[in-house]
Amino acid sequence: MTAPQVVVFDVNETLSDMAPLAARFRDVGAPELTDRVWFASLLRDAFALTAAGGTERFATFATAGLRSILAGVPLTRELDAAVEHVMSGFTALDVHPDVPGGVRALKQSGRRLVTLSNGSAGVAERLLSTAGIRDEFEHLLSVEDAGVWKPAPGSYAYAARTCGVQPADMILVAVHPWDIDGANRAGLATAWINRDGRPYPEYFTAPTHTIAELPELADRLAA
Amino acid sequence: MTAPQVVVFDVNETLSDMAPLAARFRDVGAPELTDRVWFASLLRDAFALTAAGGTERFATFATAGLRSILAGVPLTRELDAAVEHVMSGFTALDVHPDVPGGVRALKQSGRRLVTLSNGSAGVAERLLSTAGIRDEFEHLLSVEDAGVWKPAPGSYAYAARTCGVQPADMILVAVHPWDIDGANRAGLATAWINRDGRPYPEYFTAPTHTIAELPELADRLAA
Repeated sequence: MTAPQVVVFDVNETLSDMAPLAARFRDVGAPELTDRVWFASLLRDAFALTAAGGTERFATFATAGLRSILAGVPLTRELDAAVEHVMSGFTALDVHPDVPGGVRALKQSGRRLVTLSNGSAGVAERLLSTAGIRDEFEHLLSVEDAGVWKPAPGSYAYAARTCGVQPADMILVAVHPWDIDGANRAGLATAWINRDGRPYPEYFTAPTHTIAELPELADRLAA
Repeated sequence: MTAPQVVVFDVNETLSDMAPLAARFRDVGAPELTDRVWFASLLRDAFALTAAGGTERFATFATAGLRSILAGVPLTRELDAAVEHVMSGFTALDVHPDVPGGVRALKQSGRRLVTLSNGSAGVAERLLSTAGIRDEFEHLLSVEDAGVWKPAPGSYAYAARTCGVQPADMILVAVHPWDIDGANRAGLATAWINRDGRPYPEYFTAPTHTIAELPELADRLAA
């Protein structure tokens, strides 16, 4: 087996398919694109707090942000019920269809697999257990234990420390260019999953590998 | 005059009224809320790069982000022309109606006024000149010269250094809670302009003053 020894997976959107959330927003009466405004604003505020030196739990940003965005919308139900309906959808997502096969191929290549999420370890635990692939992973890590969110360097250093390896022995797998850039700056190799054929932003450092689906990665690393 | 001596204004959305941008997005065929997805995603990526230790110009994020979002939309004109139409709207905004009176009242109270923007100093120069209030400001500062974006602490320290004062001698005025939080952590007093009656996010440190319109601030500081 060639390096890297440890494959570090992002969780939200990388492993989980967030598309069903759009229907939850429609259910409560929110206009199209509200899901995208919400998720981009949630990360904007979380990254701002990270840049300013603070930290807070993912669920706090998610719930408060949702409440703020839905407060300006004519809803089909009470605000509390609308927030609950969307948030319960967030914790009931499934993995993308390409994930189980891709995860098993990487595990069978002899690599160690972990997750590193800006969300809680509990969300990853449920997601991977439901998909029948929980046991392929050695650790389900959260930035809650790192004290700082991705893409700050301390988050990736925390994962390397926990796994007892150097950053250069790890590869970060994510759909988000900001995560690829942060991991790259922290010394990890990177694999960008580009499931919908979007351009990679010019202002972020480029990924080591670009793949359309996760099963491609095991082949790339074996080459 | 009581402290603070120096009033530091954010520029985009705090002084400029970005509402006309929604019409520019409609002109090119983009669905409602695209303007909000774009601006939140732009700041998300810029703050991520800041947290990871990098920096890039505002216009680079703005143009590349717009191109990426509009690439997936059935447009009424070519992509290049659509991007140009929105970006030219961004550099042709006017100040909010409450700004000129509020700025003059603060200046007449004997305070020094500066701007500190994540955008370029040129955008602030045009905006304030057009509004006839350019001469009320001693410096128009950009994070391009600080080497780091707001809300990282180095951006506010740069403004204090340039003005030759301590952070505690300054008050940051902004509509964005993330800017209030960052300035507060950096030791400045803060004034949050809440023009549309939204709740202040619980995950950010609270503003020193909350006002609905800028002219209230001179009275608050005199009290």
